[in-house]
Amino acid sequence: MEFKKTDKGVCGKGFFAYGLKEGKYGLALIKADRVCTAAGVFTRNSVKAAHVLLDQKILSNGIRAVAANSGNANACVPEGVKDARSIQRIAARELGIQPENVAVASTGIIGRRIDLGVIKDRIKQVATKLNAKGSGNAARAIMTTDTKPKQYSIEHDGVEVGGICKGAGMIAPNMATMLCFITTNADLDRRNLQDALEAAVEESFNMITVDGDMSTNDTVLVLSTRTKKCGKGLFARMLKEVATELSKMIVRDGEGATKFIEFRITGVRSKRDAIEAAKAVANSPLVKTAFYGENPNWGRIIATIGSRIRVDYRRVDLSFQAGEMKSVLVKKGAIMGLDQARKILKNKEIKVDCNLNSGKHSATTWTCDLSEEYVRINAGYN
Amino acid sequence: MEFKKTDKGVCGKGFFAYGLKEGKYGLALIKADRVCTAAGVFTRNSVKAAHVLLDQKILSNGIRAVAANSGNANACVPEGVKDARSIQRIAARELGIQPENVAVASTGIIGRRIDLGVIKDRIKQVATKLNAKGSGNAARAIMTTDTKPKQYSIEHDGVEVGGICKGAGMIAPNMATMLCFITTNADLDRRNLQDALEAAVEESFNMITVDGDMSTNDTVLVLSTRTKKCGKGLFARMLKEVATELSKMIVRDGEGATKFIEFRITGVRSKRDAIEAAKAVANSPLVKTAFYGENPNWGRIIATIGSRIRVDYRRVDLSFQAGEMKSVLVKKGAIMGLDQARKILKNKEIKVDCNLNSGKHSATTWTCDLSEEYVRINAGYN
Repeated sequence: MEFKKTDKGVCGKGFFAYGLKEGKYGLALIKADRVCTAAGVFTRNSVKAAHVLLDQKILSNGIRAVAANSGNANACVPEGVKDARSIQRIAARELGIQPENVAVASTGIIGRRIDLGVIKDRIKQVATKLNAKGSGNAARAIMTTDTKPKQYSIEHDGVEVGGICKGAGMIAPNMATMLCFITTNADLDRRNLQDALEAAVEESFNMITVDGDMSTNDTVLVLSTRTKKCGKGLFARMLKEVATELSKMIVRDGEGATKFIEFRITGVRSKRDAIEAAKAVANSPLVKTAFYGENPNWGRIIATIGSRIRVDYRRVDLSFQAGEMKSVLVKKGAIMGLDQARKILKNKEIKVDCNLNSGKHSATTWTCDLSEEYVRINAGYN
Repeated sequence: MEFKKTDKGVCGKGFFAYGLKEGKYGLALIKADRVCTAAGVFTRNSVKAAHVLLDQKILSNGIRAVAANSGNANACVPEGVKDARSIQRIAARELGIQPENVAVASTGIIGRRIDLGVIKDRIKQVATKLNAKGSGNAARAIMTTDTKPKQYSIEHDGVEVGGICKGAGMIAPNMATMLCFITTNADLDRRNLQDALEAAVEESFNMITVDGDMSTNDTVLVLSTRTKKCGKGLFARMLKEVATELSKMIVRDGEGATKFIEFRITGVRSKRDAIEAAKAVANSPLVKTAFYGENPNWGRIIATIGSRIRVDYRRVDLSFQAGEMKSVLVKKGAIMGLDQARKILKNKEIKVDCNLNSGKHSATTWTCDLSEEYVRINAGYN
């Protein structure tokens, strides 16, 4: 089923947003016309930003607004939680709602105290400008090293799901400070909303970041006004599409990225192994530099997989694809010629398929190439 | 105890070496005046280069010579083991010894068949030039992206331990193809030699590479003529010094490296946690780019540790040191000022100490900074 794309971002029916970015600090507000049922997935880093600690406590209250700033992560500072609570109170006052219904999010430098004066000033400005077409402004305001605002929204039979997000340095997806806010009108209770979110994140944001290895701040929130009946299955598919497309936007906007790579591993003994191997490939600087150099160094891919899980390389099939062009580089461990692969690597979007022919499990990750000096050395090394 | 440094490299009493590097292929030979007791530590990658498979089988025969080539890893090719055996036979013939006493090692591009004609030609040339001062030539011949040959040797009461090694791209130490050959006259049996080697590697090469995450080729061999009585304790200390100094040389010669960083974590609940956290910091592109940018972004260090192990950052002490200059950046989670730290970061060799104050275990890793484009973005992001 194809869902209809819209340009509403987080501003589906019942939601309003706006954002401002000036100098180092950006600020975005998202507000709903009622208290929403909310679900969240947060970093598993044992050092958590103040907003993560705060949001985890208040999600069950229901959320009516999100106040998100860029420029300072409000992490690893003694006054962090106190400052996050101040932001919450300031936003609540300006929006005329209860503080316990305001979620907070921060992204930026770690270990430096946030400037509450600037934040207050920005919240005041943004609060007066909230509107039903402000999603793009909000997406822009939470950018840090992002070069483009990121939003994606779809609609099906009156059910709306839409989100904005920001990412960061894709060379180290494990440390990317990722924020994502998704809104919907789908009527699901909190438990179902949380389950759907966790499932969607597992196959989207978690396939561009490394499990248990996230930044202090990574946060995905979903708010629902619950004004439209919607089956769990339909919502799960819509949410997964929004989360996956937003994830891919983060990868495409990876720092210095020139290529977008979808890596799929199949024929693996277990799902766990498939995920582990796929993430290892997506994170390997040597694999990523080879793509930058348009160098079909398939050995690096297989060596990376082998460093994590058991591989019998005499069974391995490996192919590259770009649009209609496809090339089998390796068939049952034997090299098939690399000329066509070299042509494929000249494209901006490349699919890599690796079949270990050892089981029935699979996983897909998305990554970008790694460019420049380190790359000059590695890409040229053949 | 300080051991006396020598300039013999692998050419301690009873050992001869030479090497040639021309174009893509380099070749080094090390030969002993008798069959040596040998020990080895090899990559744990499930995809192993042909030489690893071969050497693991023959180590117990005793080893009289090592034939090592650069330019081709002889990994992930169907004919790999057959070709490795050919190299072994060719070297044995030229050196007038038995093939089952010749260890082989390869480093370079993966997945491409090795050119036996070139290898044979080089072995013939090198074999005629073996001499007791050829360690430097051998060290040079096994270089790939290394910019400097690496050797280190010491002597104590007639016991000699010396080695040569080569490393590679330090941005991904997990994929660095590392070869190291160490020779000695210390009279230890095979079991004791192997135990000493494993202990030394654990605290040296394994602290610049990631456990279980090595390249297809990583190899450390020790050969002993057993002509000099030596206590196990003394040999262990000498071997650890040689392995540690060679490891540090690999880091100092990391691709694009401008700074050498020793990272020590103390006050950790378990040794396992200490090693895990120390390696994570040493491998973090965000930490490494911050050092390149001379940016005292201590938050990245603590966030990286927290992504792997439990951290209560209100207990954390963190300091930087260069020569006599020392600066405490964080004391019990509170920032102490960064001016002195900025000065320290202008140095080429920096020590970082992080005390979690949560236990009595510790670990030390060595890493280099990460330079250029990716860096421009990350180092400038504050």
